[in-house]
Amino acid sequence: MAKTNPGNFFEDFSVGQVIRHATPRTVTAGDVALYTALYGSRFAVQSSDAFARSIGYERAPVDDMLVFHIVFGKTVPDISLNAIANLGYADCRFMKPVYPGDTLSTTSEVIGIKENSSGKTGVVYVRSTGVNQSGETVLEYVRWVMVRKNDIDLPTQDAVVPTLPDCVPADVIGEGLHEIDRQAYDTGLSGSEHLWGDYELGEKIDHLDGMTIEEAEHQLATRLYQNTAKVHFNQFTEKEGRFGRRIIYGGHIISLARALSFNGLGNGFHLAAINGGRHVSPCFAGDTVYAWSEVLDKEDKGPSLRGHALQSGRQILCRRRSARS
Amino acid sequence: MAKTNPGNFFEDFSVGQVIRHATPRTVTAGDVALYTALYGSRFAVQSSDAFARSIGYERAPVDDMLVFHIVFGKTVPDISLNAIANLGYADCRFMKPVYPGDTLSTTSEVIGIKENSSGKTGVVYVRSTGVNQSGETVLEYVRWVMVRKNDIDLPTQDAVVPTLPDCVPADVIGEGLHEIDRQAYDTGLSGSEHLWGDYELGEKIDHLDGMTIEEAEHQLATRLYQNTAKVHFNQFTEKEGRFGRRIIYGGHIISLARALSFNGLGNGFHLAAINGGRHVSPCFAGDTVYAWSEVLDKEDKGPSLRGHALQSGRQILCRRRSARS
Amino acid sequence: MAKTNPGNFFEDFSVGQVIRHATPRTVTAGDVALYTALYGSRFAVQSSDAFARSIGYERAPVDDMLVFHIVFGKTVPDISLNAIANLGYADCRFMKPVYPGDTLSTTSEVIGIKENSSGKTGVVYVRSTGVNQSGETVLEYVRWVMVRKNDIDLPTQDAVVPTLPDCVPADVIGEGLHEIDRQAYDTGLSGSEHLWGDYELGEKIDHLDGMTIEEAEHQLATRLYQNTAKVHFNQFTEKEGRFGRRIIYGGHIISLARALSFNGLGNGFHLAAINGGRHVSPCFAGDTVYAWSEVLDKEDKGPSLRGHALQSGRQILCRRRSARS
Repeated sequence: MAKTNPGNFFEDFSVGQVIRHATPRTVTAGDVALYTALYGSRFAVQSSDAFARSIGYERAPVDDMLVFHIVFGKTVPDISLNAIANLGYADCRFMKPVYPGDTLSTTSEVIGIKENSSGKTGVVYVRSTGVNQSGETVLEYVRWVMVRKNDIDLPTQDAVVPTLPDCVPADVIGEGLHEIDRQAYDTGLSGSEHLWGDYELGEKIDHLDGMTIEEAEHQLATRLYQNTAKVHFNQFTEKEGRFGRRIIYGGHIISLARALSFNGLGNGFHLAAINGGRHVSPCFAGDTVYAWSEVLDKEDKGPSLRGHALQSGRQILCRRRSARS
Repeated sequence: MAKTNPGNFFEDFSVGQVIRHATPRTVTAGDVALYTALYGSRFAVQSSDAFARSIGYERAPVDDMLVFHIVFGKTVPDISLNAIANLGYADCRFMKPVYPGDTLSTTSEVIGIKENSSGKTGVVYVRSTGVNQSGETVLEYVRWVMVRKNDIDLPTQDAVVPTLPDCVPADVIGEGLHEIDRQAYDTGLSGSEHLWGDYELGEKIDHLDGMTIEEAEHQLATRLYQNTAKVHFNQFTEKEGRFGRRIIYGGHIISLARALSFNGLGNGFHLAAINGGRHVSPCFAGDTVYAWSEVLDKEDKGPSLRGHALQSGRQILCRRRSARS
Repeated sequence: MAKTNPGNFFEDFSVGQVIRHATPRTVTAGDVALYTALYGSRFAVQSSDAFARSIGYERAPVDDMLVFHIVFGKTVPDISLNAIANLGYADCRFMKPVYPGDTLSTTSEVIGIKENSSGKTGVVYVRSTGVNQSGETVLEYVRWVMVRKNDIDLPTQDAVVPTLPDCVPADVIGEGLHEIDRQAYDTGLSGSEHLWGDYELGEKIDHLDGMTIEEAEHQLATRLYQNTAKVHFNQFTEKEGRFGRRIIYGGHIISLARALSFNGLGNGFHLAAINGGRHVSPCFAGDTVYAWSEVLDKEDKGPSLRGHALQSGRQILCRRRSARS
């Protein structure tokens, strides 16, 4: 038993601790095809080498959320194996395109801990960084999880709660973003004529389509990301028996919503940042996922970029944090 | 709502109209692996680079039906989002091998329209053309669909019903077909000793094996093809509530039947053409698909080609049209 | 009907017979991604080109069990289409790394036959050899299956039962194994600090995690391997109606157990050999698979190799044969 990974408990974390996660992963055309099969994404830049090259990429970059899931998956055995809940995300930035053939690794730094009043659990805040084989950061985000204490008699550590931005600042978003050739961007092929200038503050978009989820689908997805959280795979080990069935990895829902958002946001081909997100309700096989977006803010990033719009969705989607637990 | 795609209604189509479809798609080794996993196809030419090279291909070409589905999928948002039924196919020709790395795009021309007597729907005929990144046509086919009218008070357009061949003429099939080195074709590795000369007019072949279909399988397939028809994905939006469950994309059934046909037609490694086809009954998850073939005609295409035989199948399969609606 | 493959019956096999199997198969990055999605394997050598190169591979080799399944799948139409049971494996050696782009073919030699006393069935022993496109052997194993007789009036052939090793000899295991740079092997990235020297004779490791299997998953897997055994795909043709549902390909279970074994054997990145194995009970969709291992023996293979440990698992896993039928 000693050689298996028990995961870290609340008392194993301390602020400033840096954890180098296992299993580097080379992303391939096979991962890209599976990602398309799982979500049906249709953004032309990620779908077509020819289209991507025409606007200045070296070839079709990998979908941003696929990068997120692979970087995230590596953190599970160390950060959230004993987690009760994945509470939220903030300050998530996609900093460099990832191409098939790139190898991703992840490191996390503990930036906050706060024991709950029960003395049995606590919240751990980590900043996780995904790098490619050249050591360049491709993704960075903060998440916080509620983790069990193993020995509830251990003394309480002093709480450190990090200050997190409600929004990723616009000037930071620009860094590392790919400059594209706007003239070459073909809205006939991209599938939408609606560009940044066409979206208005407060505008809401119902993305219309729904997708019913099967057990095999979310399991294939979550294993593809080498995410080992037991609750997604074993119908018998759902902790506390709260639901009595497999819980779908929350990131699977974000990817579904992102793919559905093509219908209304067809030229929003790149996630520059995720300001914040929470998984408000669990999802199960048989559920049907819909998505809508609201334009919360707009900032122009200059001629070479399309600007960005803050997007809000359904309760199961990634959204701007209004409150943090 | 205005930024989402409402699809085209019957009155939006007119003869001569050319529609350039969105989302160009680079086909990869990942798509090929998924196609094998979805259907279990075993034709040696598509399975092995070494085998394909030995008979003169530059490497293993992509399965013809995978090309069909990708080219077809792009037409759905523009042609059949408001379709009630996909009525039939004709004059379908596979004109050039597609290799992993090729990028496919699709254009359709409206070649016929005919309003139904109810005044609420009409039939639209389109010729769709799939091209690769060099602009070479790889696939061409006609399909006709029954589409809703949005404004039933609009006047009836004059009917134009195209003349379609019952069979793709043999001399046309030759064009663009890959010449193979017959001496190098190894029937030990291909898995069948039965060559063109061994098949007789009228011969029927029961392909024996059956395949039970799961929801996750057809959904993965249909998303892989970026086919967005709602009825395949959302258990709640099946139009009119005719069936109350997800309808399987008809092309999924054709691919299953094609893969099953290996057992009896193991050297029929390339679809030169599909003379015509109809989806006679809907298929649902839990159904088990079988296939049989009948040799309807034979024509020798000379020493470098193996000739071709017309093939007929079960009611759910692609078959020669005997009547056209 | 004559053109379909009836498979071989017991009387069709004779000792010394060599069967060249159909459908050579190029392994790709697509297969690797699907394999990860199906089992969630996390061994760093197979997951990361960068990690594999750092220890001396030209790039990430394909998972050994994926090679096994592809080599095995080709034998099914010739060896086990009329099999009642797949009785066991022995003397299985993985002799050369397989990389994406390699093309695999399989040949089998009949090395034993023994009619059962009923006169209706018999056991056939075959040694199957998987080779790459250069003709190098990558995998070799013996399996024996119980096969139906077609004509029960045919006279009994003399029994020939091969002598099979209980264990693959250690000196044979060394052949063809890849020498790795031990200094460069990074246990931080591999996910485990436990090396060969840390495992003790008799040590048992419960790999903890469980995986619930879905129909779509095992069907995708088994088709990916081009394994055509009807019992895995058609809910109606399970022979004799013994179970009334689809039986999961036994190799799917081995791969699940192998992937689960990462939790406790995280540096056991390569299967050098499988001494023997049996499928003791059938598995069905809805079952949840767990795995445990026992260190049965240890032999040091010198400084360039990590030594090997014999591994035993649950009843549904591959295990050392104690008795042979």
